[in-house]
Amino acid sequence: MVEALSQLPGIGAKTAQRLSFHILSMPKEEVEAMTGAISSARENVRYCAKCQTLTDEDICPICKNPARNHRQIMVVENSRDLAAYEKTGKYEGVYHVLHGAISPMKGISPADIRLKELMERLKDDVDEVIIATGCDLEGETTAMYISKLVKPAGINTTRIAQGVPVGGDIEYVDEVTLLKALEGRTKL
Amino acid sequence: MVEALSQLPGIGAKTAQRLSFHILSMPKEEVEAMTGAISSARENVRYCAKCQTLTDEDICPICKNPARNHRQIMVVENSRDLAAYEKTGKYEGVYHVLHGAISPMKGISPADIRLKELMERLKDDVDEVIIATGCDLEGETTAMYISKLVKPAGINTTRIAQGVPVGGDIEYVDEVTLLKALEGRTKL
Repeated sequence: MVEALSQLPGIGAKTAQRLSFHILSMPKEEVEAMTGAISSARENVRYCAKCQTLTDEDICPICKNPARNHRQIMVVENSRDLAAYEKTGKYEGVYHVLHGAISPMKGISPADIRLKELMERLKDDVDEVIIATGCDLEGETTAMYISKLVKPAGINTTRIAQGVPVGGDIEYVDEVTLLKALEGRTKL
Repeated sequence: MVEALSQLPGIGAKTAQRLSFHILSMPKEEVEAMTGAISSARENVRYCAKCQTLTDEDICPICKNPARNHRQIMVVENSRDLAAYEKTGKYEGVYHVLHGAISPMKGISPADIRLKELMERLKDDVDEVIIATGCDLEGETTAMYISKLVKPAGINTTRIAQGVPVGGDIEYVDEVTLLKALEGRTKL
């Protein structure tokens, strides 16, 4: 058990031992419930047939929701980023989860992320593709790649703004971000 | 000496004592040179007659520089923010330093910051006023106030972009910034 648990990220030998002793002290039924929950989650979680996010249904609740704007697709790198945008509670479109970003350094090519599935979805009526990949090198590369694919289809392609974070003090913001904020300035 | 030094920000009684012992061990001439430098800096530093930044001349080197674009004025809260933008090395306009931001909470009114001086400068030919006050509540309030003053004069008024900082991972960015990044998205 210690060996198995210490394979998890952030759990070293000592923590694994501590967890193991705790599990050994738990009632047998609780342990069974826990292992059952883990097994069934692993068994049942799959990718949404539309947006590719992790879900336990064929189509995820967001893609199923008729109140969402299905003509506006926000492209994110992973389900955690989707969750971050969902938490804002203000985005009413749907998502597309790439499960990665293009990275020549790490040998991740466009074929390794779920771009084919995105292109497939664009055959339906889509008004806007919002590219919300990360603002690091890989996210930017992916954004450029996607915009080159999507724009010829005549679909509005936008990129989330880069700039000073809200609450940010100019003097503590890095130079590249300050430049992006200057370049991306908007009319008042 | 310990008492005097411990008045400085970030210097407590212990550090003040350590500094004092160091000063006592320094050659007398070096101590004299140091106190002289401090006195003369305090004596000679004043506000640039144009942009109001701290300088030891009547007009600061940036305002004096004919290679800068004097028709583009970036409004910042203080000289530290000016320095941050100067470090990017890419901004070619000039600045205006407010020395504060409007804050009803702290009792700082528009009359307490150098807005009159800004309005005075706008009587010359100015193409654009870039408002680069902070992205916190006070910076935003100040930005709104300035835009209401400047826009009727028919001068282009812009605000630096708010959004995800460069290198930023979407999942770790706060919700308000994510929303700003979504609202401020740009066409690709």
